[in-house]
Amino acid sequence: MRQSQLFPKTIKQSPKDAVVANHKLLVRAGFIDQLMAGSWTLLPLGWRVIEKINQIIREEMNAIGGQEMLMPLMHPKDIWDQTKRWDVADEVMFKVKGKYATEGRDYGLAFTHEEIIMDLARKNNLSYRDLPIGLYHFSTKFRNETRTQGGLLRGREFLMKDLYSLHANEKDLMDFYEICKQAYLKIFERAGVEAIVVEASGGVFTTNHTHEFQVVCEAGEDTIYYDPKTKTGFNKEICDGLQKDLMEVRAVEVGNIFPFGTYYSEKMGVNFTDEDGKQKPVYFGSYGIGQTRLMGVIVETHNDEKGIIWPESVAPYKYHLIGLNGKGGDVYRKLLGQGVEVLFDDRDISAGEKFADADLMGIPYRLVVSEKTGDKIEIKKRGEDKTELINFDRLASS
Amino acid sequence: MRQSQLFPKTIKQSPKDAVVANHKLLVRAGFIDQLMAGSWTLLPLGWRVIEKINQIIREEMNAIGGQEMLMPLMHPKDIWDQTKRWDVADEVMFKVKGKYATEGRDYGLAFTHEEIIMDLARKNNLSYRDLPIGLYHFSTKFRNETRTQGGLLRGREFLMKDLYSLHANEKDLMDFYEICKQAYLKIFERAGVEAIVVEASGGVFTTNHTHEFQVVCEAGEDTIYYDPKTKTGFNKEICDGLQKDLMEVRAVEVGNIFPFGTYYSEKMGVNFTDEDGKQKPVYFGSYGIGQTRLMGVIVETHNDEKGIIWPESVAPYKYHLIGLNGKGGDVYRKLLGQGVEVLFDDRDISAGEKFADADLMGIPYRLVVSEKTGDKIEIKKRGEDKTELINFDRLASS
Repeated sequence: MRQSQLFPKTIKQSPKDAVVANHKLLVRAGFIDQLMAGSWTLLPLGWRVIEKINQIIREEMNAIGGQEMLMPLMHPKDIWDQTKRWDVADEVMFKVKGKYATEGRDYGLAFTHEEIIMDLARKNNLSYRDLPIGLYHFSTKFRNETRTQGGLLRGREFLMKDLYSLHANEKDLMDFYEICKQAYLKIFERAGVEAIVVEASGGVFTTNHTHEFQVVCEAGEDTIYYDPKTKTGFNKEICDGLQKDLMEVRAVEVGNIFPFGTYYSEKMGVNFTDEDGKQKPVYFGSYGIGQTRLMGVIVETHNDEKGIIWPESVAPYKYHLIGLNGKGGDVYRKLLGQGVEVLFDDRDISAGEKFADADLMGIPYRLVVSEKTGDKIEIKKRGEDKTELINFDRLASS
Repeated sequence: MRQSQLFPKTIKQSPKDAVVANHKLLVRAGFIDQLMAGSWTLLPLGWRVIEKINQIIREEMNAIGGQEMLMPLMHPKDIWDQTKRWDVADEVMFKVKGKYATEGRDYGLAFTHEEIIMDLARKNNLSYRDLPIGLYHFSTKFRNETRTQGGLLRGREFLMKDLYSLHANEKDLMDFYEICKQAYLKIFERAGVEAIVVEASGGVFTTNHTHEFQVVCEAGEDTIYYDPKTKTGFNKEICDGLQKDLMEVRAVEVGNIFPFGTYYSEKMGVNFTDEDGKQKPVYFGSYGIGQTRLMGVIVETHNDEKGIIWPESVAPYKYHLIGLNGKGGDVYRKLLGQGVEVLFDDRDISAGEKFADADLMGIPYRLVVSEKTGDKIEIKKRGEDKTELINFDRLASS
């Protein structure tokens, strides 16, 4: 990509209402734009980060048997009535009036999909031979949030990956639940953040504990109680019952997993035919990751006074090639030819402005080609000071 | 993918309310599931088709300089008021009441994004150096449609790719408009359908004609007037003014392009600074393709009495490997190892049931491995009768 053509340009000033780093830096660097409170356009650079995060999640979900699909965002009231969540969800669910609909004249906008996946499952007359089933999708979620500060950390419209699993018995559910917990830790590690598994109570759904994945971060709205020795955490409710020496820290929840058991299937009549020919309720789990929030947390935990420092796994490009005095075109074309992801600053502006933009945007490796570098390339890792002059061949093989 | 694990199973009976082929076949073959009127879950097989279509579109949009991004689905009323479309769109736009929002207490759900992209553009103080700009996204659209028959042909919630372009003058806009028209024809050709460019009037927006891309198909709700010699078409309004011998045919609109000129930029105050330092309104175009509808049209035009016949470019898998009497596992693993897309029917059911499912699902090449085929593989193209016994090596190199 040639930076002269990239939309939009970077911005010198942070938005007036921006308090936290991800809000300030992602807006200034041209990754996101605020349409209204809690609602963001993912601009070309930001969308590339989300696609990298999505691909990491996709690989790990497929590895544990997940099948990707896509469920609708507008849901009929009657399905939500079956679990009584239409009324319970009144605080967070956006509601829509239909005009021509002959069924479900009221609609809710998706803030989660448990009811929808269970409705789909029960239409399919499941047998024990069909289980387990793991289905997931990447999609938009809507939540009518009171507060919308925090940049990508809290939105009224945001992106989420949700996986749902169906099983024949509790042991199969809990085995898969543990497998998914490990897959989640792998996803967060690959995305460059250290997520702590935090135990929380299952509330009305289950006597099992549920788990949150929390990243310690000052901008976080959650408080967790953390044991650095075992690297586990507890929420307030659970912590109060423990005789342990725990650190109280601020954190952001980037994922959560719920072993619902038969709570939903009993309410909605989602059964399967077991080996003995009997109808039994399916065991059900739900597993979510907020990709846009994760992107925000990555920035909160990877920045300095100059800008963002993307982990290579989720960076929009690997190389930021700075051409000075009209140089760099040859290197750009050679890198493109090798399928390397490179942003080429071909603009007719000063070296200082280009370097400042490169630091702000946070692409992992800055390459400089100028009259001074001759037939070599200056390479510098973002976040480090050391520069090095290398041959193109060494770059291509790295 | 092992078919024993694929969700869901095929269905013998068409849905009672299904009239057209795409509705019947896509539901029976397990590609889509109806949540409510006009609203479909894209099941794993269906989602694979959409991803193939998206990738074709993505490649052609990037080739003409489009930058992929993602805009929000819920829009504030005040932006839609600026073009007066909040009221005009009352028939088709779903509207939502916010609860906590301090701005734009009324929201509309996206049925298009002209206002949103123009709001984004005007925040960025564009200069002539920044133009042209081409931005696109793949996203959900909502339309409060009266009728929702026709399977994927008409939905209240559906998928669309929309591209928007901004230019410094009318010539640049119209040059790009022509480039995009050609890119669209390439997309439809690659997706296996013959799209006719149909001229329509620009209505209130522009004195230029706009263009629709129509696929001739009995299930279509549009009537177009077609000249087979020049392979161009006209809508009713335009046709009436012509002295031409035209065929009247039914068709489905799979795409449309609009050279809006300065209609939106003048209403919304979207200007750029020209070389002479003056503020001028940007020239604006909008270009849409409905991917879910395109998927429906492909099925309408590619089926026989046994089921779907996918064009290879958009098929969920290239090969449908049928293992009989426990055979086929070796071939499956070898194909997987070579990165080939294959669905392996490893189920413990009769050969007849497997063949019927293969015909219904419409994957391009059926492979059979059984005791009879020995160390060879029987290959048959969907839609043809001829079978052939070949070596694995020939398969792998094809």
